[in-house]
Amino acid sequence: MIRNPDVITRLKTAEGHLRGIQRMVEEGVYCIDIIRQIQAVQAALDKVSAMILEDHLHSCVTLAIQGEDPQERERVLKEIVEVFNATNLSQRR
Amino acid sequence: MIRNPDVITRLKTAEGHLRGIQRMVEEGVYCIDIIRQIQAVQAALDKVSAMILEDHLHSCVTLAIQGEDPQERERVLKEIVEVFNATNLSQRR
Amino acid sequence: MIRNPDVITRLKTAEGHLRGIQRMVEEGVYCIDIIRQIQAVQAALDKVSAMILEDHLHSCVTLAIQGEDPQERERVLKEIVEVFNATNLSQRR
Amino acid sequence: MIRNPDVITRLKTAEGHLRGIQRMVEEGVYCIDIIRQIQAVQAALDKVSAMILEDHLHSCVTLAIQGEDPQERERVLKEIVEVFNATNLSQRR
Repeated sequence: MIRNPDVITRLKTAEGHLRGIQRMVEEGVYCIDIIRQIQAVQAALDKVSAMILEDHLHSCVTLAIQGEDPQERERVLKEIVEVFNATNLSQRR
Repeated sequence: MIRNPDVITRLKTAEGHLRGIQRMVEEGVYCIDIIRQIQAVQAALDKVSAMILEDHLHSCVTLAIQGEDPQERERVLKEIVEVFNATNLSQRR
Repeated sequence: MIRNPDVITRLKTAEGHLRGIQRMVEEGVYCIDIIRQIQAVQAALDKVSAMILEDHLHSCVTLAIQGEDPQERERVLKEIVEVFNATNLSQRR
Repeated sequence: MIRNPDVITRLKTAEGHLRGIQRMVEEGVYCIDIIRQIQAVQAALDKVSAMILEDHLHSCVTLAIQGEDPQERERVLKEIVEVFNATNLSQRR
């Protein structure tokens, strides 16, 4: 469960930004400027993911590692590696 | 100017997806699942950028390279390298 | 400390691959094919980083979280977020 | 064909850096520091790819677009989009 209220605020901002980009497309804004705006939204979403991961490490991951269940411990660590791999570029080539 | 109607459709879909993610956060969905959904939105936006770039290469870039103005030619090629660099990871470390 | 012998093997392979790319450049291989080879080396390095991270989570991070030192715990978790951010694209735009 | 002599120099430097990282692994350097060094090599390789792409746009791509062969024109533009997609994250999720 995500407790940081900033997460929702930032997701809402990204959503508004995406609506703005649709308007820019309709108004015929230059292609490269649209691509740059899309990259800005993606950067904002990267920031949100990092905030969620930080929260997650301090809550679920810490609890699991301090807990008694080795399978649960293994599961949360495996998920971190998976998320790292997905942000990572290895899968893309 | 972007002519591909798919661009707007996909931007709208990404916007709706982001709204769905906000709901997931409010409903207390597991952190890692939220991160995965955010990554899916980013992948969808990557696809939109690629579509816009393809359009751009076939229109503005082709016109500039076939045109008579060496500065304009230089400008459009420089922009492609910049966009590549931004998608790229070099700036981040 | 990295215990997985695969890490050294894979680093050696990536090094050999880079030497091969230098030869390709000298032999005048087509630009785009060189870029693809460079991307393959980067993907191989992503895989090495993921292996090291996995090791690290199961050793240092697990020890720190089970340990008694809250500052050390905080430090290892902060590092994970930093590494995630670096693999991430947020810093680049 | 790549004419920029910097490309070979930088590839050699990256190769030397990778050898240094192998030594660091053998000497038991801290995991996270190894990952950071690997990321530095990847960033250096991103820079090399950008240099090659810039060369390529000014030579092969410009020639093809100014040329008379529509299929060749299509081919070089398609390759740019493919390289962009590969550097991009869409494929990885």
